[in-house]
Amino acid sequence: MTRIYNFSAGPAMLPEAVLRQAQDEMLDWQGSGMSVMEMSHRGKEFMSIAEQAEADLRQLMAIPDNYKVLFLQGGASSQFAMVPMNLLRGKQGADYVNTGSWSKKAIAEAKRYCQLNLAATTEDSTFTRAPAQSELKLDPDAAYVHYTPNETIGGVEFNYIPDTGDVPLVADMSSTILSRPMDVSKFGVIYAGSQKNIGPAGLTVVIVRDDLIGQTLDGTPTMFDYAAHAEAGSMYNTPPTYAWYLAGLVFAHLKQQGGLEAMAQINRNKAMKLYAAIDNSDFYANPVEPESRSWMNVPFTLANAELDAEFLKQASARGLQTLKGHRSVGGMRASIYNAMPEAGVDALIEFMAEFERKHG
Amino acid sequence: MTRIYNFSAGPAMLPEAVLRQAQDEMLDWQGSGMSVMEMSHRGKEFMSIAEQAEADLRQLMAIPDNYKVLFLQGGASSQFAMVPMNLLRGKQGADYVNTGSWSKKAIAEAKRYCQLNLAATTEDSTFTRAPAQSELKLDPDAAYVHYTPNETIGGVEFNYIPDTGDVPLVADMSSTILSRPMDVSKFGVIYAGSQKNIGPAGLTVVIVRDDLIGQTLDGTPTMFDYAAHAEAGSMYNTPPTYAWYLAGLVFAHLKQQGGLEAMAQINRNKAMKLYAAIDNSDFYANPVEPESRSWMNVPFTLANAELDAEFLKQASARGLQTLKGHRSVGGMRASIYNAMPEAGVDALIEFMAEFERKHG
Repeated sequence: MTRIYNFSAGPAMLPEAVLRQAQDEMLDWQGSGMSVMEMSHRGKEFMSIAEQAEADLRQLMAIPDNYKVLFLQGGASSQFAMVPMNLLRGKQGADYVNTGSWSKKAIAEAKRYCQLNLAATTEDSTFTRAPAQSELKLDPDAAYVHYTPNETIGGVEFNYIPDTGDVPLVADMSSTILSRPMDVSKFGVIYAGSQKNIGPAGLTVVIVRDDLIGQTLDGTPTMFDYAAHAEAGSMYNTPPTYAWYLAGLVFAHLKQQGGLEAMAQINRNKAMKLYAAIDNSDFYANPVEPESRSWMNVPFTLANAELDAEFLKQASARGLQTLKGHRSVGGMRASIYNAMPEAGVDALIEFMAEFERKHG
Repeated sequence: MTRIYNFSAGPAMLPEAVLRQAQDEMLDWQGSGMSVMEMSHRGKEFMSIAEQAEADLRQLMAIPDNYKVLFLQGGASSQFAMVPMNLLRGKQGADYVNTGSWSKKAIAEAKRYCQLNLAATTEDSTFTRAPAQSELKLDPDAAYVHYTPNETIGGVEFNYIPDTGDVPLVADMSSTILSRPMDVSKFGVIYAGSQKNIGPAGLTVVIVRDDLIGQTLDGTPTMFDYAAHAEAGSMYNTPPTYAWYLAGLVFAHLKQQGGLEAMAQINRNKAMKLYAAIDNSDFYANPVEPESRSWMNVPFTLANAELDAEFLKQASARGLQTLKGHRSVGGMRASIYNAMPEAGVDALIEFMAEFERKHG
């Protein structure tokens, strides 16, 4: 068996140690005689798994006690509707910041439920930067402010947490959660699809401040009501138990690695290496302004786009896979989430240099 | 490693052969160097897994070409809202049949979206039977008729498919799908949470006739629109890839076992054995009328409820687990889905006889 370096934007690599533990426990979790997949979600075995996962996530992210952690289904795409359905609370309008593809999806869905104020957009600079705090035109009467801390497709990341005063800040943190410490107390809601830094697809983690739970728009499906899930400890209905278990293994693994401070050092180092390799070359280019570059998703182009297919072919032959850029932007994209080893980034840099020598 | 017989109502047992294959492939799916959990859902590897799973399900259930098969998230509880949101199509009312706990949940959610006509209820006989066709008071102008072919908690099952004329029939088939052949062409929508007969929790299979797709109520979240998922081949957003893969392994396994005709024989045989053991005893009792008894969920009581705890303790010591009845009805419940081997039912019957000899 040869494991590849998989630069997929999500679903993405998982820590090998986590996969090995899941493999070992597949038919018999800790002497229970059952796979985790086979456990009643209300049985003592799964309850212990669920509680440990939440406790570890709370510790990793230092989540304050006045926040609920929900383990839901439906991805960030469901949150695009759940956020206005739960957070408008009698208000009409909400502020949205547009920094690229995922912001736009959140905005399109929110417009169906609220008067949307575009607090900032970097579309005029083709989404190659995050706006500065001073550029945000915030409405003090908005129900909330929504932004996308990391744009998975554009590779643009905020290097600060916006200050929104008393207006709750809502973040689609799908592609940057757990990559470094974040002050949760500055947010009203953090949500994240699991398939990048948390675990397998099919789980959505929502961290929501208590006072924002309990007032939904008329017609909100019960499954889209944060209160239904909060009151039931994320067991209003059968949760995605196996994905929850895998997430718990990832959380425990991150704690073993030294927690989010340690991950931040590793992630910064991996990203800086890769950007340096790109910047030190006339053959590769990344369009994003240096202070807004993502640690997680590194898009880059070749000087000659006709070489793209050859680049991907040779990379794949070396076990460097899923490097093709998103169809909306072309070129390449290396997603280097927590589970991408530094050795994978090194191997990519080495290959890039070699390819440039041959074809540059 | 000793595997137990797990009588959980869901999540429930999976075929051991399926778990072994998943274990073998955990770190490296067919030489790809990736776990299925790590694959991009749009990559060729996962696309082949997804397509094979759908093809196998279509073959197993003989699903006509004018039906879409959707692989969604959110469970039957999400369908309780999605059904009226998608199927009212300008009409005001829908017919619902109430045969127990799960019917009631579907009804409570649907009432928020439509004028609900209770076409039949067996509440006056404490949900111990399914209503006959002649008892159904159907509104010819209803948008659809909803029923629950198998009540997981009450252990009540329809032994016929209701005839609703031109009005689309909608079934929550969570706990009976794949247990026997069913004529899909008689249904408008079939939906099923996966965690009983399909695979791990976190996947919901929806089989919907083409003409019922595309008209939603105002305010329906995009993720609750069948059309969004149908047009995108269930990849409007990242699907629950690992659960989809496991479902595919289960489908392939069922084909190997001889398909749904073979499963029907095995399931009928398992159920009849267990009901015979109950009926031939004065110590055990099942309250459901014989023609409405479920093949999948067999609730039963002991003559003396004070022995319940001792029964569960001794059963557990023999590897016969999760036999406690649902908290709403008490007593015992043996869920004997497709993956419960006949040997598990035999072991339960043997234990029950022995317990009766000692304590009866």
